[in-house]
Formats: sequence, structure tokens, C-alpha cells
Amino acid sequence: MSGPGIDEAPGFPLPLSGATRVYAILGDPIGQVASPRLFNSAFRRRGAEAVLVPLHVAPPDLAAVIEVFRATQNFDGLIITVPHKVAALELVDEVGAMGARIGAVNVIRKQNGRLLGDNFDGIGFVRGLRERGHELAGRRVLIIGLGGAGRAVAHAVLDEAPAAIRLFDIDRRRAENIAEELRRVSPDVAVEYGEPDPIGFDVAVNCTSVGMAPADPFPLRVDSLSPSTLVVDIILKPSVTPLLEEASRRGCGTHSGIHMLQGQVDAVCAFFGIGA
Amino acid sequence: MSGPGIDEAPGFPLPLSGATRVYAILGDPIGQVASPRLFNSAFRRRGAEAVLVPLHVAPPDLAAVIEVFRATQNFDGLIITVPHKVAALELVDEVGAMGARIGAVNVIRKQNGRLLGDNFDGIGFVRGLRERGHELAGRRVLIIGLGGAGRAVAHAVLDEAPAAIRLFDIDRRRAENIAEELRRVSPDVAVEYGEPDPIGFDVAVNCTSVGMAPADPFPLRVDSLSPSTLVVDIILKPSVTPLLEEASRRGCGTHSGIHMLQGQVDAVCAFFGIGA
Repeated sequence: MSGPGIDEAPGFPLPLSGATRVYAILGDPIGQVASPRLFNSAFRRRGAEAVLVPLHVAPPDLAAVIEVFRATQNFDGLIITVPHKVAALELVDEVGAMGARIGAVNVIRKQNGRLLGDNFDGIGFVRGLRERGHELAGRRVLIIGLGGAGRAVAHAVLDEAPAAIRLFDIDRRRAENIAEELRRVSPDVAVEYGEPDPIGFDVAVNCTSVGMAPADPFPLRVDSLSPSTLVVDIILKPSVTPLLEEASRRGCGTHSGIHMLQGQVDAVCAFFGIGA
Repeated sequence: MSGPGIDEAPGFPLPLSGATRVYAILGDPIGQVASPRLFNSAFRRRGAEAVLVPLHVAPPDLAAVIEVFRATQNFDGLIITVPHKVAALELVDEVGAMGARIGAVNVIRKQNGRLLGDNFDGIGFVRGLRERGHELAGRRVLIIGLGGAGRAVAHAVLDEAPAAIRLFDIDRRRAENIAEELRRVSPDVAVEYGEPDPIGFDVAVNCTSVGMAPADPFPLRVDSLSPSTLVVDIILKPSVTPLLEEASRRGCGTHSGIHMLQGQVDAVCAFFGIGA
């Protein structure tokens, strides 16, 4: 059988051997995750003899998997995804600044025998926008959905000094609590709770899972979209959600979920000690 | 960077994604194992979206790793190597016939939610010889070293109906116990305990680790070697041991450790449900 060159297909690590270092992404479900494709290509580009594998771990088993990670000598790093990011915070020994701020970790590595967790979701989001030419300083940003990803996005957006942030969640109390949390970190940025209406916003971000299923409604009021609003969705599958399709039809710029993940790759490789 | 085609370099699985199924080899140490190279190539040849990674697991952690294997939904199989093969037998729910006979398992898979272990070391040894044109039926076979691998080799050799088997181990009691075990299975084959002297044997097999370190003595009396004796070493590193080098110099045929592992690949892939 004749295959493509390894540099033409994403998802290849270097050839595996007994000396290969191991990384894993833990999630439930797991089939949809893009990290194995992105990180194995990144490891190969960096010449790292390392592989990242998907592990389908149910919530009751998370602690045991993290203890096996701790004990296994050539198992160097974890990426943590839905629904484990909050629970994982309690299972590490130390937490980095952003992880502590948002109460969730999405990466874990070893450091002198201890487990260090941190969160690069928000940083990946901001880097992904920047890599496509979108800056957030001075802009008005609407964020819809304040679950784990939304909270990470909100904190990273806050650090870019936007003109204003509006938060919306179907659980109003949750959004208001996070608004209060943001005001405590940066009192100078105007942060409000409000409706999912993009009128007057430069950037509108969907951080809910609404749009993954074909019959889902739109997560924001698309009738109010003007072409000056950049519409962002963090959903990975489908890569073009109904929201992005509708926004595009209305002349808006769009930005899809894969960029947030691509924006994380460099930062997470550095966290893992795998240099460029 | 420009890489080789994936079919030119061993050790490549298909590109990884979130849907990739996971296999691992557990050992301590782990850096020397050849299974990641052999099995990832075999998986790719078979079109299996699967990867086999090395995990460096210390003996006190084996049970926890096997429980995580049990719980992790996309983690489909384990290869067990030194020093875990006997301990692993106690950690599975069912054991295949050869695994039960030799009291050790080197593979584990899931079957209706239960863990099934078995042992393919000896079958791999016999297949590896056969693939290089060496049959054991009617031959006189000397086996040196009756640890886990030697015991597996002895039982698989027995099943080939050799004319005679001599066992030697520095622990004489251990070798005599295994000789007795073989006689119970196949009373018609002449099995004896005896000296590591190859005079009169068609095949002499080193199943000790003597030969891995440069300063090691020979594991058998090389002065007695005649060119009609096939000399076999199951050591993987170095691929040509001092014993094989000396046997070659004396005009003997030789057969190295990698063939035993290659001989296992087809059988273990079938056990894992990964068809040819």
C-alpha cells in the first residue's frame, strides 16, 4: 500500500517506539475532539518523540486516571476537556493564575513530582482571533453562554482591555456572578448582564453548545446582526454552524471554533516543555 | 520539513483523531520495547484506526493501570511485558488456555465488559522460527533460562512434538518443576533437566537475559557448538548478542529475538479483533 507523505496528512506523530513520551486528552464523549490531530502534527513539526492519544473517561473514573498519569513515568501531560475541567482542578497539586481565576483546568503537567494544572482555553481564543487579524482592545464584546468555556473566554477577553463586555446565559444568576467576578479583576472595563442581542456589538461570541444539533435554534438574535459585527462560534462540529452560516449570509465576518484550538497549540506545547 | 512516506518508516499508525482506539504496552523499563514500532505498522497495514503507546508502569501501579484500562471506553487492549506478566494474570477476569498453562499473560482485551488475558510469547517464538523456515517437530531442543519467557517457549515447543527437550536454569528446582509440568501435558515427549551444553541438540535457545550487558559470559557452552545446531536468542537488544556472534563464527545458523516478536504480531492483532 502506498500512503501520503507524513507532512501532507495532519495527525501523525513521529514514528512510535518504546522511548516515545505519552500525552492524552481526557473527555466524555471523545470522538469529536480535534487535539489528537492538531497536537500530533505540532509534536512532529517540533521533532518531539511524543504522541497524544484520546481517552474516553467517564466522570467517576477521572481521579483514577489522573493518579495513573501521576504514577506512569513516561506519561508527561494531559489535556482536559468536557466535562472534566472543573473536577480536574481539585485533583492537581498546584494551579496556574488563569486556571485559578476561572476555577477550571484544561492542561496538566508534572513539575518536580507534583501535578500543575492551568487553563489555556481563553488564551487560545484570543490568540486564534489575533492570528486571523481580529483584536479585542477597545471593542464591544457580547458573550453568550457562561459555562466553563464561556467563563474562560470572558476572562481572556477582559485581559485584552475591551471597551465593554455583555454576558448572557439562560442561567441569569450564573452570568451575573461571572460579571461580578470580571469587575473585581478589572474595575475599569464596563461589564453587564444583558440580552443575547448583538445590536451595537463589534464581536458576538457563542460559547453555548446550541448549534451542534441540526434542529437547534440560533443562540442569539440574528435579526439584529449588522455586517459590522464579527460573529464567533466556539463549536467544533459542525465547523460551520447554522449561526455562522446565517451571519455570513447577512454580510458579517465569521470565525469558527477550530481557531480557538489552533490558538492554544503553541501555548500548550510550551507549557508541556515541547519547544518550537 | 519534508518527511519520508509513511510506508517507508515503521512505527506509524494512521493519523490520530478523537476516534482513534488506544492500545498500550506496560513494562518497567519501557524504552527498549519493540511493540510500538511493530504494532503501529501492523495496525496501519490493516487500516485500523488505532495506536499502541508505551507506558512505563512500576509494579505497585499495575493494578491501578489495569483498572483504568477497564474503565476507559476507547482503550481496547494491553500488551504486558517484564516484570508484569505473572502479576497481570491475577488482575484479569478470564485466562486463555496457554496463559493458564504457563501462569502468565502478555495480552489483555475486553470481552463483554470482562478482561480476558492470554499468552502469545511461545506461539510467537514458534511462528517466528517457522517464518524463517525452522520447524521443531522431531528435533532435540535445549532451552536455557526458565523465567516467564523460557516457560512460555518451553510449552510452545512442547506443542510442536519435538523429539526431546532439555531444560537448564541456574535455579535447578525451577527448571525441574517446569520439566514435570511439561511431562504432565505431553507424556510422550522426552523432557529432562540438564547442563547448558548443546552437544547433540538441533536447536539451542537462550531465554535468559545473559548477553544484554557487554561483559556478560555466554549463557551456554559455546565450545560444544557444532554447525548443525541452530542457535536462538530471544534478547531484543542487542539484536545480535555475543552468543549469536560466536555461534555464527562457528558456522551455526542463528535466529534473533525480534523474530519472536514479529511472530506474535499477527496472532495478537487477531486476539485484539484487528483483522488482516
